[in-house]
Amino acid sequence: MRAWINGQPASAINVADRGLAYGDGLFETIKVRAGRAALLERHLARLQEGCQRLAIPCDMALLRQELLLYLQQVGDGVCKLILTRGAGQRGYTIPEFCEPQRVLQATPTPQWPIAHRQHGIQLFPCQLRLSAQPRLAGLKHLNRLEQVLARAEWSDPAYAEGLLLDQQGHVLDCVFSNVFIVREQQLLTPALHNAGVAGVMRAELLQRAKAAGISVAVKEISLTQLQQADEVFTCNSLYGIWPVRGYAEQSWSVGPITRKLQQLIIDLVDE
Amino acid sequence: MRAWINGQPASAINVADRGLAYGDGLFETIKVRAGRAALLERHLARLQEGCQRLAIPCDMALLRQELLLYLQQVGDGVCKLILTRGAGQRGYTIPEFCEPQRVLQATPTPQWPIAHRQHGIQLFPCQLRLSAQPRLAGLKHLNRLEQVLARAEWSDPAYAEGLLLDQQGHVLDCVFSNVFIVREQQLLTPALHNAGVAGVMRAELLQRAKAAGISVAVKEISLTQLQQADEVFTCNSLYGIWPVRGYAEQSWSVGPITRKLQQLIIDLVDE
Repeated sequence: MRAWINGQPASAINVADRGLAYGDGLFETIKVRAGRAALLERHLARLQEGCQRLAIPCDMALLRQELLLYLQQVGDGVCKLILTRGAGQRGYTIPEFCEPQRVLQATPTPQWPIAHRQHGIQLFPCQLRLSAQPRLAGLKHLNRLEQVLARAEWSDPAYAEGLLLDQQGHVLDCVFSNVFIVREQQLLTPALHNAGVAGVMRAELLQRAKAAGISVAVKEISLTQLQQADEVFTCNSLYGIWPVRGYAEQSWSVGPITRKLQQLIIDLVDE
Repeated sequence: MRAWINGQPASAINVADRGLAYGDGLFETIKVRAGRAALLERHLARLQEGCQRLAIPCDMALLRQELLLYLQQVGDGVCKLILTRGAGQRGYTIPEFCEPQRVLQATPTPQWPIAHRQHGIQLFPCQLRLSAQPRLAGLKHLNRLEQVLARAEWSDPAYAEGLLLDQQGHVLDCVFSNVFIVREQQLLTPALHNAGVAGVMRAELLQRAKAAGISVAVKEISLTQLQQADEVFTCNSLYGIWPVRGYAEQSWSVGPITRKLQQLIIDLVDE
């Protein structure tokens, strides 16, 4: 289906848009089933936080309205929402008057092997270390060259995802997922104060796990802690949870807490 | 004058372009006088290095040909060249077949006060610390949110530029310029192994200064070294050299080596 810009069908965006010039904008990748968005409020909340932190003035009510209309037409698939600051003159200075552009695009639901969810995946050990930038950490902004370079490190389909460390060698996230470990019955995921994308599925999982009586913590995680973990898994809003079976020399079987969490979010990902 | 994409007049680019989605591309900002580009070979060499490091397949001969034609039509002003990896499906994986997009845009020559060059400028002390990413350092890529955020830190026109430090507090560069200091007759500029844009005017200055018998060094520069410098100046390919008169509590008069270097590049910037 055709893309929309600002509520109108369109296939191209102004070459002077700052989204292109500087990656000056944000995006969301939304799972759509039967014309409805999964985790809609979390996507919109993250987008709104991004707008506040980047000082992009966005009419959230209008954006929501356009999005809901578009989703109905998508039916099933993935809706990618891009919000840019809009067109500007040359130069980094934010223009006094900017018209943020709301871009909606639809793609088919990705066809990952069902085995990823059932039997687990191998994580590629990416060499690229994520840079630290507290001003951008957590946001799903349009500056994603690190992810492009990290994803280009492997082409062997035996690896479904790649693990990214920060400059200090701590575990941060994966190329297009967040990562969790389980240690002594506790669920842990890296704090994202300096880098990484704060995934909506990560947030949902933390909430549902807690509600289900699982102890959770968000903190710095060393590579050694990951290697010694009882269970490891990745998550995102499109595929849900993939147990991790292997990373470098380490291997795991799919653990009970991972299985329990998969059950806890089955309403969000079951096809 | 109208923009060109791939040699044809166009004002909009495919919404599925990875330049928009991920900032997956590069740019150059080229000073044009009487239809000719200043420092053309340096701009093209940096772009080519960027293509190699990002694995963007670009027909440099074709790009050069289009650029030269476009510059003739621009006459005088600034030509912004954007090279993106091209359109792709959703996801960070680099598609097997990509058609890089060559975008050319023209803007008028910026009208900075002549006093900047003659009497010097005040540098704003930016709070944002540039992140370290050796894989991207030196390139003029499209991931420029740090510069957008840094430039947004001040609106007082008393500051013509802002100084950026890295995460360790070392001097890195400015928002849209490189920075040099002079200490005991030696010209110094920060090494850009971990962050920063390796400006074409920076490279040209290093070469011309050396040829003129000035001792030059590219190395780590602490904030204290800058504060204790005999002379400080900024440079870029559009305005040439601006002496720095003030930064935080420090002040300088315009020094003899800064003046000499301004003379050495007068063919590149004199209007």
